[in-house]
Amino acid sequence: MFKKVLVANRGEIAVRIIRTLKEMGIQSVAIYSSADSDSLHVKLADEAIKVGGPRSKDSYLNMKNIVSAALLTGAEAIHPGYGFLSENELFVEMVQAVGIKWIGPSPQVIGLMGNKANARESMRKAGVPVIPGSDGFIKDAGEAKIVANRVGYPLLLKAAAGGGGKGMRFVYTDDELADKFDDAQREAQAAFGDNHMYVEKVMENVRHIEMQIMRDQYGATVYFPERNCSLQRNNQKVMEESPALGVTPAMRAMLGEIAVKAADAIDYENTGTLEFLQDHDGNFYFMEMNTRIQVEHPVTELVSGIDLIRMQIEVAAGEHLAIAQDDVKVNGHAIEVRLNAEQPAHNFAPSAGKIDFVFLPTGGPGVRIDSAIYTGDQIQPFYDSMIGKFLTSGDNREVAIDKMKRILNELDIHGVSTNAEFQINLLEDSTVARGYFDTRYLEKEFMPRWLENQAKED
Amino acid sequence: MFKKVLVANRGEIAVRIIRTLKEMGIQSVAIYSSADSDSLHVKLADEAIKVGGPRSKDSYLNMKNIVSAALLTGAEAIHPGYGFLSENELFVEMVQAVGIKWIGPSPQVIGLMGNKANARESMRKAGVPVIPGSDGFIKDAGEAKIVANRVGYPLLLKAAAGGGGKGMRFVYTDDELADKFDDAQREAQAAFGDNHMYVEKVMENVRHIEMQIMRDQYGATVYFPERNCSLQRNNQKVMEESPALGVTPAMRAMLGEIAVKAADAIDYENTGTLEFLQDHDGNFYFMEMNTRIQVEHPVTELVSGIDLIRMQIEVAAGEHLAIAQDDVKVNGHAIEVRLNAEQPAHNFAPSAGKIDFVFLPTGGPGVRIDSAIYTGDQIQPFYDSMIGKFLTSGDNREVAIDKMKRILNELDIHGVSTNAEFQINLLEDSTVARGYFDTRYLEKEFMPRWLENQAKED
Repeated sequence: MFKKVLVANRGEIAVRIIRTLKEMGIQSVAIYSSADSDSLHVKLADEAIKVGGPRSKDSYLNMKNIVSAALLTGAEAIHPGYGFLSENELFVEMVQAVGIKWIGPSPQVIGLMGNKANARESMRKAGVPVIPGSDGFIKDAGEAKIVANRVGYPLLLKAAAGGGGKGMRFVYTDDELADKFDDAQREAQAAFGDNHMYVEKVMENVRHIEMQIMRDQYGATVYFPERNCSLQRNNQKVMEESPALGVTPAMRAMLGEIAVKAADAIDYENTGTLEFLQDHDGNFYFMEMNTRIQVEHPVTELVSGIDLIRMQIEVAAGEHLAIAQDDVKVNGHAIEVRLNAEQPAHNFAPSAGKIDFVFLPTGGPGVRIDSAIYTGDQIQPFYDSMIGKFLTSGDNREVAIDKMKRILNELDIHGVSTNAEFQINLLEDSTVARGYFDTRYLEKEFMPRWLENQAKED
Repeated sequence: MFKKVLVANRGEIAVRIIRTLKEMGIQSVAIYSSADSDSLHVKLADEAIKVGGPRSKDSYLNMKNIVSAALLTGAEAIHPGYGFLSENELFVEMVQAVGIKWIGPSPQVIGLMGNKANARESMRKAGVPVIPGSDGFIKDAGEAKIVANRVGYPLLLKAAAGGGGKGMRFVYTDDELADKFDDAQREAQAAFGDNHMYVEKVMENVRHIEMQIMRDQYGATVYFPERNCSLQRNNQKVMEESPALGVTPAMRAMLGEIAVKAADAIDYENTGTLEFLQDHDGNFYFMEMNTRIQVEHPVTELVSGIDLIRMQIEVAAGEHLAIAQDDVKVNGHAIEVRLNAEQPAHNFAPSAGKIDFVFLPTGGPGVRIDSAIYTGDQIQPFYDSMIGKFLTSGDNREVAIDKMKRILNELDIHGVSTNAEFQINLLEDSTVARGYFDTRYLEKEFMPRWLENQAKED
């Protein structure tokens, strides 16, 4: 087992990883920006190295400084968490080049899955159902039109190197195709230095269902209970749960076996998550694969009783998977609510500042709060606005939701605004309470009503 | 189901109960002393009634005021928590006389189990193995001698109405019997107004193992995984765990069936715990029964996944038990450490004062902290020194212990002294780590070494 591991992240996920390292008897090294010197992850780690200025590009994205920090402290491995450099193929190559173990898959696999068109193509070849669309790249609007004839409108033109909506266009008719294709391709070239394009059918009335897997260096793989992450705003998940209502044990096994087949096909190592869209008829279509731990992994830990971060570290250290598929159970139901420092009524504008007081409602059965905040902490404007993850679990979905409303109501925080009340309102929504909603529900149906109610209250 | 319930307690257990009431959609009424007006249980409850001065006898033991508060607020039931009036037969009679439901067993059963000699006798008749000793009361030293001839020395003379060591004497020889008997009987009369005496053999090298049961109003009963509470100081539990090492599934079932038989014999209602001593040969001997929820119930919740407070309320409201015996599983291992505001190196003297800052290390899998403290809270000198319960769980005992050491080390609290370091030292002890220790281990072996080390450090 490793003696020392560097955690290349900040906030709750850095704290989460450092805590597990401590429990495993492994020395932990934190990195931090000049804005984060009093942050909890710095306080908890055995060592902490400042890697740059407050902006992410100068610190948490500063590849050379992070690799140097690892070398300087003698860290044998790097855990990237999520976000920042966690899916950066180049960084992983740098890490491996200096003989440090990456806690995650190979740079080749990260690169393959990072290119959305290549990911789609390799999954299709592995027998994974993908969203109807082009086979590989398309070189112009004419090729897109041929696909449109086959799968129908609306279509989504996408940049192969894409992300963040750049180089992406919705197309509703043949007439729109030519202009939008050229426009999107130019944008892709500008954003990614890569103008490869592909096309997918726009899936409507679909749910976001994802399967996480863990694969060791010897090819053994397990899949975990699926998560439903359909409540989204701006393609950001707002609330997640496991299991997904309406996914039967047979569907779970089918989806799990697809995920394992996919992992085998690309000789995957460590944990990853295949994101699927599920249509009204129950069919699943591969969307993309995240090649690192996800924000919402704790809902899976709550229903399965498995420590996924510990398992990541064990697998990276060359251990065999400690469990077999039969050991993975689904106990009850768990939900996660993302607590953000923001102002939902003002277009979710981030809220930074000093936390003058915080009371986190820990305690009792089925409550878990993953957070790095404390009374006196400073919320920085430079990073993601998520300041905590509220998790509840119980025998069934209703118990978990009642518990979540209770803890969100108990939260007491002064100094920054949060989305706690917004999340309570979302949980009180009758459609959310029933548990069936598609990926557009929050933005298209819930938000307009919510904004109207807010206006009335003002 | 009840619409409103009064919680006749304070601190973490009042908070624990109020939270479950909220999750069940039941209105909660807190009571508080004049010292507790800013306490968390008061803040969280829907209503709060001041029942008297700071001393327990004036407030949390003030029967008339508590019953009045329940009537005044229209509470339909009272949850007593543990301690205070939770095992006071007279109080339960008062509560029932005004038509309020008691969340616990009948006053007759509380009275029966409160008289230790009667409890012993009724359990013996129900076929529960009891500690060798007298059958019923003994009226003089002569009768005690007859028992001594049968079971051998050392003996323990005990007051039937006993508690807190009053009217209790260790006897090692025939010669000591007469004097000690008269002495103990006088003390019993003075302390309890009752001079009934009985005698038990002193059990040495024994573990404290207890079985909690839940019985509904229709006679259905389940038992929960046993707890090992052998780490004690001054007959106070310091650390508890479940399951107990060395208790096999067959032993668990045997002990559970004994507990169910005992509950049936006295027509028990709601939850209760039978405390046993286990000797070196694995035999169990009934010691006493607690007729209320116990401090250490969360370790059972962690390994079984069952919310025991919720179940208490459901059963009291006349619902059938929601589970059968087969639904009660033992998942992994859980431990509880009692965090006290005290100074272990100064004979565990209580430490009161304002909590200037507290960071509770919540977060990650397998961590639960039940507490009512917050930054700015005041620890009062009038009540028990326990200010929180730290709980961890994992696949096995080692994982739970490593996690516990980690969270105790992370705890950051300013303004009062705590036993956190003492508890860490206890967890680091090789005998505690191995998991086999008797009820005298902490005081007889660990403490002298610990005090010696403390002296060296000074």
